Amino acid sequence: MPAHDSTESFDKHPSLIIRELHPFNAGPPPELLRRAFITPQELFFVRNHAPVPAIDAADYRLPVKGLAQNALSLSLDELRRFPKHEVMATLQCAGNRRDVMTAIRPVSGELPWGAEAISNAIWGGARLRDILDAARVEGEARHVAFLGLDEIKKKGARFGFGGSIPIEKALSPEVILAYEMNGEALAPVHGGPLRVVVPGYIGARSVKWIGEVTLQTDPSDNYYQARSYKLFPPQTTVDDADWERGLMLGELSVNSFITSPVEGAVVEDGTIAVQGYATAGGNRRVERVDLSIDGGATWTTATLDDDADATQSWAWRFWEAQLDLPTGAHTVVARAWDSAANTQPADASTIWNFKGYMNNAWPRVTFKVR
Amino acid sequence: MPAHDSTESFDKHPSLIIRELHPFNAGPPPELLRRAFITPQELFFVRNHAPVPAIDAADYRLPVKGLAQNALSLSLDELRRFPKHEVMATLQCAGNRRDVMTAIRPVSGELPWGAEAISNAIWGGARLRDILDAARVEGEARHVAFLGLDEIKKKGARFGFGGSIPIEKALSPEVILAYEMNGEALAPVHGGPLRVVVPGYIGARSVKWIGEVTLQTDPSDNYYQARSYKLFPPQTTVDDADWERGLMLGELSVNSFITSPVEGAVVEDGTIAVQGYATAGGNRRVERVDLSIDGGATWTTATLDDDADATQSWAWRFWEAQLDLPTGAHTVVARAWDSAANTQPADASTIWNFKGYMNNAWPRVTFKVR
Repeated sequence: MPAHDSTESFDKHPSLIIRELHPFNAGPPPELLRRAFITPQELFFVRNHAPVPAIDAADYRLPVKGLAQNALSLSLDELRRFPKHEVMATLQCAGNRRDVMTAIRPVSGELPWGAEAISNAIWGGARLRDILDAARVEGEARHVAFLGLDEIKKKGARFGFGGSIPIEKALSPEVILAYEMNGEALAPVHGGPLRVVVPGYIGARSVKWIGEVTLQTDPSDNYYQARSYKLFPPQTTVDDADWERGLMLGELSVNSFITSPVEGAVVEDGTIAVQGYATAGGNRRVERVDLSIDGGATWTTATLDDDADATQSWAWRFWEAQLDLPTGAHTVVARAWDSAANTQPADASTIWNFKGYMNNAWPRVTFKVR
Repeated sequence: MPAHDSTESFDKHPSLIIRELHPFNAGPPPELLRRAFITPQELFFVRNHAPVPAIDAADYRLPVKGLAQNALSLSLDELRRFPKHEVMATLQCAGNRRDVMTAIRPVSGELPWGAEAISNAIWGGARLRDILDAARVEGEARHVAFLGLDEIKKKGARFGFGGSIPIEKALSPEVILAYEMNGEALAPVHGGPLRVVVPGYIGARSVKWIGEVTLQTDPSDNYYQARSYKLFPPQTTVDDADWERGLMLGELSVNSFITSPVEGAVVEDGTIAVQGYATAGGNRRVERVDLSIDGGATWTTATLDDDADATQSWAWRFWEAQLDLPTGAHTVVARAWDSAANTQPADASTIWNFKGYMNNAWPRVTFKVR
């Protein structure tokens, strides 16, 4: 893999909550996120593991290799000659809402995300399936691995960020090699000139600055597939983790968040609008969001916005409820249900894990009505 | 639909827990279920909504119609000429584990299932996909509806049990029109001569005594798809349910059960073997089962049996843990995790619904060590 120059000098939206500067990691305040169903590129959350590589579009080639009868090496122009498809998909980091877990017990050196490691966009590009068809996949291929052109330095080694998805997912029509985002050129900070978009999976599988596609029998042995982004039980610590046994994260679990009122808000007496977002993983869809103001003893069902119709299974759903609440302090909790009747666990303490991944416990907000 | 004679006179295994005699509804005690990974036909749970229809195999025809360019009418011999495939799949009623919900608040006139409305078998038959390919599916077909040859009497009407699945699922290789169960002819009580098997979905979609397959734009309008087998929020009652708005059940949520020790058992001092089953829905897989003896504050991870390898995604997984417990009373809870990092909710009270469906709260067993 050729080394590339890299840069962290790009325009940064002033509203972004910056969790790390080098490499750049940031997301918008959730209440801002909730204002637009499609997140503008400049507000879209950024989860990078290394500086943004500077890639010369004219020189760029994407090798498609491994268990393929017709290995390819595609220029950007050649990639653009495949039929262009657009898919609306919400991307979400496995570490979204980690702050709740960190407050219970510290986690192992991960970014302190709140609920802002999530955004929604329309991705335009070639279907991975069309490219794999051109490469003529061999029968024994079970996984498709991606390798980024970024350069991570870890324990003396230098390597690109990588990951893989099962072949069935790779051949699904929603998986895109994207060169556009919301109808614009894909910005370098979001993976331009070319990234994978794997709707319904943790964000880490949507590898940015993709430099290599490999058809293989096993999941990627890249650090970020083989060791990181694994879910361990609460009793496991970083010191005693058996990395072979962790749950290799792929599809997202059902999740939701309350974007307003914000924690600690003081709101005027009357009808209180409670708003938020909800997401489902895989090909599942958010079917219902419930709210409770008595810790889950009784529930009210929120109204789901119509923005996401049946053709937009991979987009989040916005929801809202009007609650009549007396003056005083209130704690509201929410929970989403997906189309497989999965719902969220009540308490983050029961699902705590030392990496702080996949916190989908009921979101809670305490506010005051005066 | 031709009327058929029906019968309830068939051999009934003496160990079955009979929940209803007419129509016959029964399942094996869970600790018996846990003794064999493949459930024998005579122990396999039965959920029938009407008496078993007596079908003359020689006269039997299966129409495949609707949005098909080449409508079919297949005899059993013709069905057997399609390539035979075997799929191991656990079927589970949406009402499995309902007893826990009923104990919280009565539910609306449903069978009082414990954890025995579930069993695992190897189903042999033709792929639905192969039959649909022969029928040449038209582009606008979005759902495949099934209608049974049984005769349900409800509010003056007589109709067969029916349901539907999305076209994507219907075209998946695991969906079978089965005429064999565990290598034997499919018994009439289990849907013989021909039933649908929809792995990963609630049992109701695996329609028995199938008499009609229809390609259509919308889900089935049969009572058991359009009104029954829908999930409503806890605050909804049978009287105020808006049937249009319930969650139409399809894929199963993640679930588990503790088969031993049984509730109220007294066990000898020493190491206690805790055993159970766990299931995941859709194409997901059970990845982990955790146990807690302090109500979820701390956890131990159970050992998953190797019976279900990666090629058996639709089978349950058996699990076991050895716990060292002091004398006295103990309550153990369990929870399973699926490959999308979904896990079970803690308390059935928070997911109670007036039909008593989809109870996947943590199973709890209280027993005494002496």
